[in-house]
Amino acid sequence: MYRPEIKVIDCTVRDGGLMNKWQFDDKFVRRVYESLTKAGVDYMEIGYLSSEGKFSRDEMGPWKFCAEEDLRRIIGEGEKRIKLSAMADIGRIEYGDIPQKADSSLDMIRVACYVHQVDAAIDLAHHCIDKGYETTINLMAVSTVGLRDLEEALSDLAQSRVPIIYLVDSFGAFYSEDIETLAKRYMASLPGKTIGIHCHNNQQLAFANTITSIICGINYLDATLYGIGRGAGNCPLELLISFLKNPKFKVRPLIEAIEHEILPWSKKIDWGYFIPYMITGVLNQHPRTAIAHMESEHPETVTDFFDQATSVA
Amino acid sequence: MYRPEIKVIDCTVRDGGLMNKWQFDDKFVRRVYESLTKAGVDYMEIGYLSSEGKFSRDEMGPWKFCAEEDLRRIIGEGEKRIKLSAMADIGRIEYGDIPQKADSSLDMIRVACYVHQVDAAIDLAHHCIDKGYETTINLMAVSTVGLRDLEEALSDLAQSRVPIIYLVDSFGAFYSEDIETLAKRYMASLPGKTIGIHCHNNQQLAFANTITSIICGINYLDATLYGIGRGAGNCPLELLISFLKNPKFKVRPLIEAIEHEILPWSKKIDWGYFIPYMITGVLNQHPRTAIAHMESEHPETVTDFFDQATSVA
Repeated sequence: MYRPEIKVIDCTVRDGGLMNKWQFDDKFVRRVYESLTKAGVDYMEIGYLSSEGKFSRDEMGPWKFCAEEDLRRIIGEGEKRIKLSAMADIGRIEYGDIPQKADSSLDMIRVACYVHQVDAAIDLAHHCIDKGYETTINLMAVSTVGLRDLEEALSDLAQSRVPIIYLVDSFGAFYSEDIETLAKRYMASLPGKTIGIHCHNNQQLAFANTITSIICGINYLDATLYGIGRGAGNCPLELLISFLKNPKFKVRPLIEAIEHEILPWSKKIDWGYFIPYMITGVLNQHPRTAIAHMESEHPETVTDFFDQATSVA
Repeated sequence: MYRPEIKVIDCTVRDGGLMNKWQFDDKFVRRVYESLTKAGVDYMEIGYLSSEGKFSRDEMGPWKFCAEEDLRRIIGEGEKRIKLSAMADIGRIEYGDIPQKADSSLDMIRVACYVHQVDAAIDLAHHCIDKGYETTINLMAVSTVGLRDLEEALSDLAQSRVPIIYLVDSFGAFYSEDIETLAKRYMASLPGKTIGIHCHNNQQLAFANTITSIICGINYLDATLYGIGRGAGNCPLELLISFLKNPKFKVRPLIEAIEHEILPWSKKIDWGYFIPYMITGVLNQHPRTAIAHMESEHPETVTDFFDQATSVA
């Protein structure tokens, strides 16, 4: 029996874009948009919402900015039957650059922050709510946060007007028991709010931990096509949709999009289960050292990487 | 806190050999043997126990047979500090070809069978027990077995002298809730016996389901280096060893073996998460059609494969 409160958020373009500076062509983004719509996915997170002054368009593709004219080009003339989301990082978007919801094709803005940025995140999220958007706060890297800091952040979030708060396993470090413990804590500390989950796949647990979170009552579920994303990537959307029982979800359009748009990228960029990402996941470390190792001349020297990652010097 | 009853069984050579007809050279097998020993792994399943007449040595490498002289060459002169296991398939080994334990370097023989073969499996396993071996029965493909047949098989196994019975997710079809349900059923139906788990990774759940089985009280855990194995492969040993808390386990020797022996094979043969394997897993089908598709000229035509696999014609 399916739970109607469950919403699936595809992050293919937003999280996958971390691999290629959002240099996806319009054909790619449009095909993803159309396939997600056909598959019954609830939200497509199409990129980051950034101020033009913060990054160069010469370096970054359009989905680093999510300008209205770029969104319009993807949506085209047809009726929009999927909600669009953009992620906002603290300090990379000026409030004045966020349009009123009435002037935007975006439906939701998700504010990503670390625990020490929670006050700034709430302020930005309230601003987005006041402009008419659905809004979430995605609290990153909580696997490295002490209990007191986490409780303070959750207490601040509980008092905010932000209705949806995400549990994020930024480093792919959590086992199912961690997800259970944290899901219970989030739900106890955030009464009346909806909880979301965003997992990384360093230990091949992104899908499994998403299932665990569903069992624990979490209702907003992030995933990407074929798990595309930075480093080890994310929960594969095709697995999640196959698991969920709501008959509105269809997996075939996702398989088609993977064949035509994602598999070609898998020849050009590496994401998924590789030993350096596994090592940072097990060690609960940021994947940046693993990403650098994977981009080095000898990515296969995984024993050296292990020795460096575990060195106490 | 670790559970001393937990034993880890590496199946790298036996299950990985399904990909290349056991054509691993001695350097490969010796390095795996040495790294598993250093890592504190409890058992190395080094191949299948088959009668020479059943297969040709021209086609199959030595680990399809596990002859004593081949085992001796790997063990060398040093003390054997890891137990060796071989798998026996019903009908592929003549009883007379199984040496007495006193004349063999093998410690354990694992009998693999389908539910309809359970009587033959018990007979073979009793024969192995009487020759002095540790013995298990690995009941395959139970995801396709009806409740009455499963209960009858478990009842037969309960009355046997075989001390260890494996829950096997042959098709990579199980979710954690299936593992929980079946683990409880096996333990209730097989009082006094030890239960093992062998998972496949079609839905990226082999490691997660192995963790679930540990939580449920299962104590014999199968895995392979980097998940090598037929189709989607197995639970990755390096993840399992990193998860287990017994200080006797070390992950570094496994990382080294992956670097020197497994990564080179990963350039030559494909195992792991691919859409055709995901599809047979989700559909609870034998992976043979997916393997054939992956070996065809156009493995990237995954939508065609989906349509064939889901066709009711």
